[in-house]
Order: sequence, then structure tokens, then C-alpha cells
Amino acid sequence: MTSAGATLRTIRERKPLVHNITNYVVMNETANATLALGALPVMAHASEEVEEMARLASALVLNIGTLSPHWIEAMLLAGAAATERRTPIVLDPVGAGATEFRTLTAHRLLDAVGVTVLRGNAGEVATLVGAHAEVRGVESIVAGLEPGELARTAAQRLGVVASVTGPVDHVSDGERVLAVANGHELLSTVTGTGCMSSALTGCFLAAKPNEPVEAAAEALAAFGVAAEDAAAGADGPGTFHARLYDGLYALDPATLDERVRIEER
Amino acid sequence: MTSAGATLRTIRERKPLVHNITNYVVMNETANATLALGALPVMAHASEEVEEMARLASALVLNIGTLSPHWIEAMLLAGAAATERRTPIVLDPVGAGATEFRTLTAHRLLDAVGVTVLRGNAGEVATLVGAHAEVRGVESIVAGLEPGELARTAAQRLGVVASVTGPVDHVSDGERVLAVANGHELLSTVTGTGCMSSALTGCFLAAKPNEPVEAAAEALAAFGVAAEDAAAGADGPGTFHARLYDGLYALDPATLDERVRIEER
Amino acid sequence: MTSAGATLRTIRERKPLVHNITNYVVMNETANATLALGALPVMAHASEEVEEMARLASALVLNIGTLSPHWIEAMLLAGAAATERRTPIVLDPVGAGATEFRTLTAHRLLDAVGVTVLRGNAGEVATLVGAHAEVRGVESIVAGLEPGELARTAAQRLGVVASVTGPVDHVSDGERVLAVANGHELLSTVTGTGCMSSALTGCFLAAKPNEPVEAAAEALAAFGVAAEDAAAGADGPGTFHARLYDGLYALDPATLDERVRIEER
Repeated sequence: MTSAGATLRTIRERKPLVHNITNYVVMNETANATLALGALPVMAHASEEVEEMARLASALVLNIGTLSPHWIEAMLLAGAAATERRTPIVLDPVGAGATEFRTLTAHRLLDAVGVTVLRGNAGEVATLVGAHAEVRGVESIVAGLEPGELARTAAQRLGVVASVTGPVDHVSDGERVLAVANGHELLSTVTGTGCMSSALTGCFLAAKPNEPVEAAAEALAAFGVAAEDAAAGADGPGTFHARLYDGLYALDPATLDERVRIEER
Repeated sequence: MTSAGATLRTIRERKPLVHNITNYVVMNETANATLALGALPVMAHASEEVEEMARLASALVLNIGTLSPHWIEAMLLAGAAATERRTPIVLDPVGAGATEFRTLTAHRLLDAVGVTVLRGNAGEVATLVGAHAEVRGVESIVAGLEPGELARTAAQRLGVVASVTGPVDHVSDGERVLAVANGHELLSTVTGTGCMSSALTGCFLAAKPNEPVEAAAEALAAFGVAAEDAAAGADGPGTFHARLYDGLYALDPATLDERVRIEER
Repeated sequence: MTSAGATLRTIRERKPLVHNITNYVVMNETANATLALGALPVMAHASEEVEEMARLASALVLNIGTLSPHWIEAMLLAGAAATERRTPIVLDPVGAGATEFRTLTAHRLLDAVGVTVLRGNAGEVATLVGAHAEVRGVESIVAGLEPGELARTAAQRLGVVASVTGPVDHVSDGERVLAVANGHELLSTVTGTGCMSSALTGCFLAAKPNEPVEAAAEALAAFGVAAEDAAAGADGPGTFHARLYDGLYALDPATLDERVRIEER
């Protein structure tokens, strides 16, 4: 059952440790989003420690936004440790489709690691299911499928919960599709908001590991509500960005569900 | 001809992809400045993908703020790919003069890569033309030449458009010198604003590749106008920093030229 | 004698260069805190240049928040150069206790480098003195000792000035203990505020190298006053974070001491 408020309450009570191996651009921002929500972020990428850290964590978030070979090795090591303990894993395939290196790395991680939720934009996810997509840099311009259908197809073919974000987000386990209509257009004017949504997906999975479709949809809805609140009173991307953490911090488990716009498609 | 407004309109319409290989300190900030202006940033530094990414981009920005050997290799690879396609390249020689490693690396890049615009402070640029300069860390305290003259000399000796930022900025192709008087003193209280100006120079070059002097001056003027707007209502460096992205986002192609203070010296 | 105002005045006049080898998550934030206070930050980590940079600096800050082997080598090189010149060194053992790699690295740095001030939370410092501590990720949940006693014990056993931050901070040279009661609970909702306090400790040590206990306590008091001012008018962690730099920038040497709450225990 979906209740973003109840899951948020669990997060705030348990303060789960969420291990991120993520890109340089958004490390601070994803850590701050995680902390503002109420979970405990940790960033660690050295091969010497990622397995130990992954074993301590309640969720692992792998993000390929600024790749290099030894980071991939660390992701594989941490991913194996998390997979062995059935710790939920989020993969954010940033820029898959933009370069072959990113596409291949995303596939390599999907093959080697027990990814629970794949969280990407339409172009990235379409690339990974082999659909036609045009990806420019890390922004998806065009994808070949209706996003709900894309999420369902990706979930089936890749054996994951697919979480495809966009103006409306779509989360699917290959059968059901949940559409999330929360959010604000200013999110697309700040770098790393997609990465933040992946980190928050990790937080919700940590608190609700056995219902990954619901957890992924709730994470996007909660982030969307925070964005709606942040936009009220923002003067542009910079003040919106600062207020986004205020919005996450101010989310109220008691009233969140009234704001959430999740629909089964 | 100089029209920052017209170039900004082109940027907003085409959303050029700007490939940055930059330092860890400012990755998020330069990406957000690029996005707030209306272009599409991408950060990628792995040798496995930088050539492919550089070929997709409409401008390449190389910034040596936190150097290490394999990043230099990546800059050389990306720089060669961009040079081959005549893609405009910006070099930001952060800290040249502070350590020999930085000075030598800046020279190595200038020698190997077809740099279009060299964007630095007076101390960094003076170091690269062999003038006397005192550089402490990444801040230039003293330089041996009047900045307009420094820009002209650097352009002549290094075969680039030199863009020397300071209280008044000076851009030269070795003959003409454009002075840009926009900006605000709070810019010097936030780290990475120089790096942002280099990234924005990349955006303007992407839209106006055949007039690099004008493009470089327009970028600094537009950034300066955004800073002027950000300063109004800021309480200090932190709120100014947040409002700087608001200012970039709010720049209006229709009215920008009225605010721009570019003069031919 | 303790006068945070007088030391701040010295910092603003001399603008000491503070060399940071720190983690990816907080590079921008610690640089901005240093700059807002009035000192000059520089981030450099390449083995090729760290010794030269460390020799130029008036303080060195080593932070192990996102470790990897070649960064440790750089810290050892820079640390040796700074030790040789008796430049004050701050060590921030982020996450010591969370993984063996971090604990061992912190000990290795303490053994090899002339650390002046060890600045950590209770769990990290307790780990390094061998006391029982539970560390989850980079947050300390429980430590086995009263914090003033912990600071004194750590200073004695590790031969450093120990600066243990928490709701009340405690700084000790092994005999005296100074307690600092400035600060605000919102500090714990923003990532990297501990790292900022280490960077600011470096700034105060640069201006007052011969009184490290006083310098360390004054740095925490000044940061705490800035946080108190930032909290007034903040709507949550994001706006607090932006206002924190405003607060540091607005610190007034003439009135700071009236706000400072440092007590000898």
C-alpha cells in the first residue's frame, strides 16, 4: 500500500544510512537532500572500504554521472556486497546514450549487480531497453515511447523496478504502472535534481525494502511536494535550489499523503 | 558586432551542449550557471569518453583548478577532438603561477590544444606571458601590467583571445581591446565565480563561434548584469550566490543590451 | 588569551592562504566558508604540487571524508612539507570508526604528520583514542566519554590539541579544556558543517599559530555565532546554509567577543 507519509515517518525514526557512490557534480546536493529528508547519507568510493560501508548501509545508490574506471570497480564491489545482503540498490544511469562508455557501464552494472530500482530520464531508460532515443549530454530530448509504457518495458526487459522521471513520473515493476504528478518545472533548471531523486529513492527503499514500486513512487512524490513548496516564494533556480532543502525538511508525515498525486495507470 | 541580447537569444533557442572538464570545487556551480543561462552543461572526464563527448558539444571548457595527471590526459584528448572539429575551446588556467605544475600544465594545454579564449585573472594571465606576477593560491594579488595591455599582450604572444577578469574585465584578440564594466564586488566573495565566467564564455562561444572577442565580452557582461541583479537584495555572499543563478535565469534578451557596459578601448 | 575578535581582525588584514586537501562533498562549501570569513582558500591534491602549495600556505587542512589511496599519499606529502615549516595542520578524521580504512588512515596521518589540531565529532575522536564509539557513516551517535573528558584524553594520548564538536564543543591541549557554547541545531541538518569548522580552524590557526587551543576554540565560537545569525530568518536547512556564508562575512571583529561563549572548564 502506498503511504508516503508513513514511509517518511519510518525514515525520520530510523535514520537509515544510505551509501552513495555518485558523481562529483552532485555529491554535496544529494547528501544535503538525504539529510534534509531525515536519513543519513554517506559518500565513500575507495575500493578499500566500499564493501564494508555497503554492508553498514540500508540502501546503496550508484550514480554514473562522472565515471572513471576505478569508480566502476568500486560500484561493482559495493554492489556485490549489497546484493549479497539483499540491501536495496538504486542505479542512476546518468548520460546513458550520450556516450558508449556510459551506456556500456550502465549495462555492466545492471548485469552484475542486483539493481532494485533503475531511476533515469526517458532518454536514458530508452537507451537501456534499446529503444530509439536522442540523448544530448545528460539531458534527454526525445524518447521513442510513451513514458508509462517505457517504464513497464524497461522493468520487464531489465528485471528491475523502472522509475522514469519527467513532467509526470512513471514507476513500474513490469506489470503495474504508478504515475506521479507532483513536481515543478523549476526542477529542470537546477543540475542534479534527478540525482537527488535517486538518492531519495534510496532513502524510501531503506524504509520500505519489500515494496519497491511504492517506495520509488513515494520518493518521487515527496520530492515533488518539496519542490512545489520550494517554488512558492522562489525568485529563480538559485533561491529555488536553497528552498528545496527547506521543503524536504518541512515535509510532514501527518499531512504528506494529502498532497501526494500518485495514480495507478 | 556586439549584442549580448541577440547571442543570449540564440543560446536559449539552441540550448548548445557545453562540455566541461573542470575542477571538483566548482562542478556543480558551473553546471548550474550554464543551465540557468539556458545552455546544457555536461561534465565528463574519463579518457574512455571525453573525445566522444567533446565531438557532441558546441564548446569545450578546460579548467585546471584541481589538477591531476589523468585529468590532464583527458583534457588533451578532449582538446584534440574539439580542435579537429573547430569547436571553440575555453581554457581557465586556475592558479597558474601558484605552483609550477599549474603553470606548466597551462602552457602544455596552450601548446597542444587550439584554445580559442584564455579566461583568467590578471595574475594567472601575466604568469603565462612571463610578466611579473604574484599569485597566492588561486587569487591574483599583483600583476605587472595594466589589464587592457595585459590582455592585448597575452593575445599576441599566446595566439588566443585573452579574457582578463577583474574589477573591469578586458578582452583582446591582440589588436582590439574590449573593456567590460559590468559586475559586482560580491563576486569576489564567492569561490568559483571566475570558473563560472569561463563556463559562460563557453556558452556564448557556442552560439557565436566566429566572433570570439565579442562572445567573450558578452559573456562577461551578461554574467556581470546577473551579478548586479543578484546583489540587489542579497545579505552577503551566500544569498548573493543563490541569487546569482536567479539573475542568470532572469536575463532578458530583449533588454540585456541596455544594461551591458562594453567599451572598445 | 582568547579574543576571537582580535584573531578575526588579523585574518581579515593578512588574508592567510589556507591549503585544503579535503573531500569532494564539501570542497566548494569549505572554500566559500574560508572566503566569507576573510581568508584565502586553495584546494590542491596532486602529488606533483601539494608540497609546493603547502609551503606557500599559512595552514594546512587534511580531511579524509572521501578517501582514496593517492589522496592519502598527497596528504602525507603536504603534511611533511607543512610539518617541516611548522605550519599549523588540522586533521579532520571524517568517518573514523565507520570503516577500518578510515580509522587506519587517520592513525597513519596522526603518526606521520605533525597535526596541530584534531577536529572531529565525539564518535570519531573516541574511535581514535580507542574508546567505545558507535559511528554510523559519518555521524557519531554514541561515544563512551563525557566530551570534555574525551577532548582532554585525546589530546594527551594523541599529542594534539583535540577539538571535539557537538551541541557544546570542547577543545583541550591535554590539560586545559575550553567549552564553546555557540552554535545552532540547524548546523546538523547541513552536510559539511563539521568540515567547514575544520577549515575555519585552519584560518584561525594561520592567524594565531602559537596559541592553538585558543585559536581552535575561537574558530568554533565564530562559526557558531555565524550560525546563530544565519538561523534567524532561515526557513530550513537550505536557506540556513546560504545565510551561513552571509553570517561569516558579517562577523564584526569589534563586537564578536561579546557574542562568544567560551568557558574554561
